[in-house]
Amino acid sequence: MSLGGPAGKPAGKPAAGLAGEAAGTVRLPGFVNAHSHAFHRVLRGASETGSGNFWTWRQMMYAVAERLDPDSYRDLATCVYAEMVLAGWTAVGEFHYLHHGPGGVPYADPNEMSWAIVDAAEAAGIRLTLLDTCYLQAGVGGAAVEGVQLRFSDGDGDTWSRRVTAASESGRFGRTPAAVPARLAAAIHSVRAVPRSAMGSVVAWAAEEGAPLHVHVSEQRKENEECLAETQMTPTDLLASVGALSDRTTAVHATHLTARDVTRYGLARCGICACPTTERDLGDGGGPFSDLAESGAVLCVGSDSHAVIDPFEETRSLETHQRLTQERRGIMSIASLIEAGSSGGAHSLGWGEEPLDDWVTVRVDESPALAGAGTGAGAAGAGAAGGAGSGSGAPPDEALLARVLFGASPADVDEVTVAGRRVVEGGEHVTLGPRRAVAERLSQAITRLLDRP
Amino acid sequence: MSLGGPAGKPAGKPAAGLAGEAAGTVRLPGFVNAHSHAFHRVLRGASETGSGNFWTWRQMMYAVAERLDPDSYRDLATCVYAEMVLAGWTAVGEFHYLHHGPGGVPYADPNEMSWAIVDAAEAAGIRLTLLDTCYLQAGVGGAAVEGVQLRFSDGDGDTWSRRVTAASESGRFGRTPAAVPARLAAAIHSVRAVPRSAMGSVVAWAAEEGAPLHVHVSEQRKENEECLAETQMTPTDLLASVGALSDRTTAVHATHLTARDVTRYGLARCGICACPTTERDLGDGGGPFSDLAESGAVLCVGSDSHAVIDPFEETRSLETHQRLTQERRGIMSIASLIEAGSSGGAHSLGWGEEPLDDWVTVRVDESPALAGAGTGAGAAGAGAAGGAGSGSGAPPDEALLARVLFGASPADVDEVTVAGRRVVEGGEHVTLGPRRAVAERLSQAITRLLDRP
Repeated sequence: MSLGGPAGKPAGKPAAGLAGEAAGTVRLPGFVNAHSHAFHRVLRGASETGSGNFWTWRQMMYAVAERLDPDSYRDLATCVYAEMVLAGWTAVGEFHYLHHGPGGVPYADPNEMSWAIVDAAEAAGIRLTLLDTCYLQAGVGGAAVEGVQLRFSDGDGDTWSRRVTAASESGRFGRTPAAVPARLAAAIHSVRAVPRSAMGSVVAWAAEEGAPLHVHVSEQRKENEECLAETQMTPTDLLASVGALSDRTTAVHATHLTARDVTRYGLARCGICACPTTERDLGDGGGPFSDLAESGAVLCVGSDSHAVIDPFEETRSLETHQRLTQERRGIMSIASLIEAGSSGGAHSLGWGEEPLDDWVTVRVDESPALAGAGTGAGAAGAGAAGGAGSGSGAPPDEALLARVLFGASPADVDEVTVAGRRVVEGGEHVTLGPRRAVAERLSQAITRLLDRP
Repeated sequence: MSLGGPAGKPAGKPAAGLAGEAAGTVRLPGFVNAHSHAFHRVLRGASETGSGNFWTWRQMMYAVAERLDPDSYRDLATCVYAEMVLAGWTAVGEFHYLHHGPGGVPYADPNEMSWAIVDAAEAAGIRLTLLDTCYLQAGVGGAAVEGVQLRFSDGDGDTWSRRVTAASESGRFGRTPAAVPARLAAAIHSVRAVPRSAMGSVVAWAAEEGAPLHVHVSEQRKENEECLAETQMTPTDLLASVGALSDRTTAVHATHLTARDVTRYGLARCGICACPTTERDLGDGGGPFSDLAESGAVLCVGSDSHAVIDPFEETRSLETHQRLTQERRGIMSIASLIEAGSSGGAHSLGWGEEPLDDWVTVRVDESPALAGAGTGAGAAGAGAAGGAGSGSGAPPDEALLARVLFGASPADVDEVTVAGRRVVEGGEHVTLGPRRAVAERLSQAITRLLDRP
């Protein structure tokens, strides 16, 4: 029976790479987590009592940041990235601003915290773009960093630039294909944290390297208000005024935008990184994502604070949050959602030029939640094994993709491949041991940081 | 370390019944699914392509309803209820309106479809309140039912009342404690589907039986507009005018309300059933749930269309959807969320008077998603085994509850107890076989209904 669904708008280009590998499975392009703060994972569930808002949550997050050192961060991030690959993310963009030791004193190697992140991604087997983040002030007006923010700051833009150039020349990025691919990129934390005068250093470094440039934009109304009061510009206009908006730029959140801001991102073909599960957890509000896509911006998603690590929920929430506010369905096509979850993120993180041999295979025959989802799988994927890049074999099936995207959870992930290397098999991490062992190690890492019994 | 969270409002009364049963587990009161249309499960993921809205989705749902008969519905509902108990729901309110055969011809026993539901709940081991639903017209203006709606209609309120009275006297409800508890209650489908003149029959039946009375209210703006145009009243005012609002009444959705509507529900101490995952899936919008709770209404939750069957997500979404629109956190306390997910639903479904021996035990040591959540479990639950009703042993711990509620998924459910009877053990259904077998049976039931390959 045809369900006689609405005619609707055209489905758009089907996502590349769908193929069933074996009976009872559906293979999707690897999900790309374009915005991560690995250490925020410590706060999952721990900030949900009491009232508050983004700013009160930030105080708790700062308390965790105070405690981290290179060893504890390496251990924690290894586990968080392992949770990601087990959930079906194959690449991560780590928006990394915790650079220095207590009081802001640089480590002997000023990139030591970066190496903790790179080591962690390698251990977990996840493709990494390290977004080395410039953070120099406590607010739009130029207040000096204080407390743990001292650990974020390089003092000025040129010093940031020299440190990142040293990282770039370290040989730790872009190594042989046998290793887990890692790449270095740049970030302006926000218009709050980087003065206009220093933004140029970051923009110039990224331009010279041809590297991605990420920036938190308008996540909170307060940021907009302070920016307008201080500069008579929206954060987006301020970034545009220093040449920060290009097709290598990704605006993260982009929640509270003007129509003019939306047009700017579209004209510049910027990336836009929605972080739906964090935006609902923190009470940020929901951004104008369909307007941004229509304007020409390229959407991607990230799990940001890791209140949730679930690429299916992150990706479908890009649609369902807009349904809640716009009161209609099918705002984005399934193909455009899958693209936001995969190729859009790859573009944002600098992997857009090359075919990625990154895949996630979902079992559709074991969980009641997916019952009925796979009944088209045989038709779509029979005999279409492996193969890098765009899908080989049977044509993609948007209806099947829809059923998997809207029904799956991390518990349904069977196999994960990153750069052709199998990282997850039978739902277990290939090198870090059983799921339960990963959970135990992550639990210990969190417990140590929180001094919980 | 204390995370130094915001002082916030008082946490409220801790939820009853929390106790750790064994190392690595946390026990919660059974979740109550106060609003279900079991057959809508067929549409999970199948209505997500193309554009549309609630009304276009309804056309697809009608196409499924056309196909059901007592045998296929018994089989389908058995699997859907099994999915529910595996996910941690221990009770369900089935809002049941598919009463008659094709063309509206009654079955030999006019309650045969009701027995399919009762049989299914018994087979799955889930506590049932059958909300026998009156559905008589196609719109507020009194248009005649047509198409599959003929199967919903008893023709008039008195005929509905006689059929339901026959069901009540059948001996199939309120049987011996050994069986799965089942109870009969009433529903007015909506102000669209029941004329004001017939509402009195349903209100009177429920009052005489002391039974719950449920009604869909203001899920869609179109319903409000039509009701205002026809009656010069909001749906809530119309229901109040026939005496339908009492502390046995639950308004389902209650999305698009006036301030006066909110006050009415509070003054009458009505139940309010939020269905967050359906409301986001269908693009209904989000209701003023915290306002309703503050006014005195009693909140509960339901998975409604079963786009998602996950009591953790349903319950936490009651909070997180409001965060998205109100742009603040901690709108409801953890205790009030747990109450909405359990005792609020029990009250709504007529189980409020008795202590329920219904529990769900979550493993917190196996999934990376819950890593760190259980590190307080030993302190909260050590040695506090079993016991009906309110929790015995160690005091409840709101912080632990928060970590479990915001981190758990159905994959973490270990044991489920309904009326003292173990229904799920080790994550598997005790009588219906392994999770995979339940998935296979559900998949076959769906596939048959959709004629999918």
